[in-house]
Amino acid sequence: MEVAKGLAGVIVDETRICKIDKDTNRLFYFGYEIQELVRRLSYEDVFFLLTHGDLATPAQLEDFKAAMALGRALPAAIISLLEAIPANADPMDVLRTGCSLLATLKPDSPKAVLATTAAPLGNALISMLLYWWHFHKSGKRIDTESGESSMAGHFLHLLHGRSADELHRRAIEVSLIIYAEHDFNASTYAARIATSTRSDLYSSLISAIGTLRGPLHGGANARVMDMLDRFKSPDEAEAGLREMLANKAVIFGFGQRAYSTADPRNAINKRWAERLADAAGDRMLFDVAERIEHVMDRDKKMFANLDYYTAVIYRLCGLPTALFPPMFLIARVPGLIAHISEQRANNRLIHPSSKYIGPDPRAVPDAFPELS
Amino acid sequence: MEVAKGLAGVIVDETRICKIDKDTNRLFYFGYEIQELVRRLSYEDVFFLLTHGDLATPAQLEDFKAAMALGRALPAAIISLLEAIPANADPMDVLRTGCSLLATLKPDSPKAVLATTAAPLGNALISMLLYWWHFHKSGKRIDTESGESSMAGHFLHLLHGRSADELHRRAIEVSLIIYAEHDFNASTYAARIATSTRSDLYSSLISAIGTLRGPLHGGANARVMDMLDRFKSPDEAEAGLREMLANKAVIFGFGQRAYSTADPRNAINKRWAERLADAAGDRMLFDVAERIEHVMDRDKKMFANLDYYTAVIYRLCGLPTALFPPMFLIARVPGLIAHISEQRANNRLIHPSSKYIGPDPRAVPDAFPELS
Repeated sequence: MEVAKGLAGVIVDETRICKIDKDTNRLFYFGYEIQELVRRLSYEDVFFLLTHGDLATPAQLEDFKAAMALGRALPAAIISLLEAIPANADPMDVLRTGCSLLATLKPDSPKAVLATTAAPLGNALISMLLYWWHFHKSGKRIDTESGESSMAGHFLHLLHGRSADELHRRAIEVSLIIYAEHDFNASTYAARIATSTRSDLYSSLISAIGTLRGPLHGGANARVMDMLDRFKSPDEAEAGLREMLANKAVIFGFGQRAYSTADPRNAINKRWAERLADAAGDRMLFDVAERIEHVMDRDKKMFANLDYYTAVIYRLCGLPTALFPPMFLIARVPGLIAHISEQRANNRLIHPSSKYIGPDPRAVPDAFPELS
Repeated sequence: MEVAKGLAGVIVDETRICKIDKDTNRLFYFGYEIQELVRRLSYEDVFFLLTHGDLATPAQLEDFKAAMALGRALPAAIISLLEAIPANADPMDVLRTGCSLLATLKPDSPKAVLATTAAPLGNALISMLLYWWHFHKSGKRIDTESGESSMAGHFLHLLHGRSADELHRRAIEVSLIIYAEHDFNASTYAARIATSTRSDLYSSLISAIGTLRGPLHGGANARVMDMLDRFKSPDEAEAGLREMLANKAVIFGFGQRAYSTADPRNAINKRWAERLADAAGDRMLFDVAERIEHVMDRDKKMFANLDYYTAVIYRLCGLPTALFPPMFLIARVPGLIAHISEQRANNRLIHPSSKYIGPDPRAVPDAFPELS
């Protein structure tokens, strides 16, 4: 009786959504390779692709973007909730709670078209996150209807209170695209398990939020930032890294078992991180990151994963570190919807077995008298 | 490459919590058999057993009950939230959202003792559920500090506005005990997956709530009630059942793959359902249920599971049908805590694999120009 702890290597389902070729380090969403996706598509294109299985026509995309934008205005009950959530809460808890209340205000139903119910949710999560953020940081009650034409623009507009320039907007858009989907993983499988009992869309998303929240999953990009923040120059970073390695510290942002020698998303991120650094006229953070990447490759044969330069990109776009993990979750919404949709279309209740290793049958001690 | 869809027969971990002997139809919590548990223990005893792995001494139990009772008073932010959740919401969504907000008010932390953080949660969920229920049904803002010495008493007191008699209190207590734990299943595994990323206690519980919410899991007891409500006599029930079977309708409350010929919890439930019926001086509902059970056994060789007579018990204790599934979840809290605790103590990130059957690599059409 083999115990498949962690489900390592267990193939739990067939999927049409995401192909990862470990041998060649390649990643595809519904057949389109990640390099192509970030070069030629908007995040809204990718959201449509993941939730419909194919690219939108221009007319379909226009309708879909209008549906997506409906999520930006927040219901009054959500606003009251966000004001009541403490300032020191984990931002993932804000999204989890806001999404859970939204389920009661705009419920999913078995008859609803999944992609239609889901379309506004990315924008809604951004509005919730940044309304809560500004209210508790500065007491400001922001208007969450940004009027921006993209989700990336909506995010930066709400964060900074004005439209972003195109370089920064596109950098965030690319980041949303590369975080959008990555096959079966803990949070995606959590969403599929909730779906397998025929629960609603929101319950599935909320399971994913609570699962992605853990430091072994969605928290890595913020931990990369915490590490990079400790160093003021590449040389200092190299010395600090050696010390961390000597102390067997975990270095976040490296390794990804889905690939053999490189995470294909890292080259994309690295290029964007460098563009943003050059545009800012300050390459120090980028140079620090690049040195650590170099030393990890040279000394540990470990490659940077998608979380690594994401930290540099987010910092250079002005995101507070606390908002890095929620960005991963927000970006992942269309991937989660794709998996929920696939699970619904060919469902089987997910119900594993266990191996009992506990106490043998034993009698309740006489000290406990008969009650009824 | 075998695909283990639904994880049927896949042993995903070792466990010390729950033993189910399929051949002999027996169920044990940490070695104590379910018939003994319901005869000699309070729900608080079982809550302690499941969250600590052993029975409490009288002094330990007294302290633990005091910790449990701390959940009854609701923070003002929770009360505001409950008043804002619509009257027509799914009660499971109320619990999921309330629990999610509670996480921000009384956060879990890696340093906290799990059983201490968890002790108040059953009472807190009861208070939330019934505050919301009364507020939206009758506009009444109930005092959720019942002063009762048991969780079952707390529930009935808040539901009916007065102390229950001992027969009804103990019937609910027994129901809480038999719903408290049942090995790996969809919601329990969902909680373990969130725990496996080192997420917090609340995220794990919320994943379980959202997963249990589905009609294929926690919704069955309410569906049994809906069926029983259609019949006014045993003969009518038998005729109606035959028609349902002829139409291949799903009959809720029957079958449980963990057992071969009987669910050991059903005999317990049936005895309590009959006691309550006799005490009420009206056996009709019980007789209807018993006739259907008899016909299902005779004609379909199917045995009633724990959800079946639970419906009769809950009705005879005055519970509205909408509150049946939340009772399952509330009862299951200590079982979930046991699994979260076990997962934490010997953790491995749960991350399955998939088999790709989607489109071959394809080029993005020329209609999508290069963007960046």
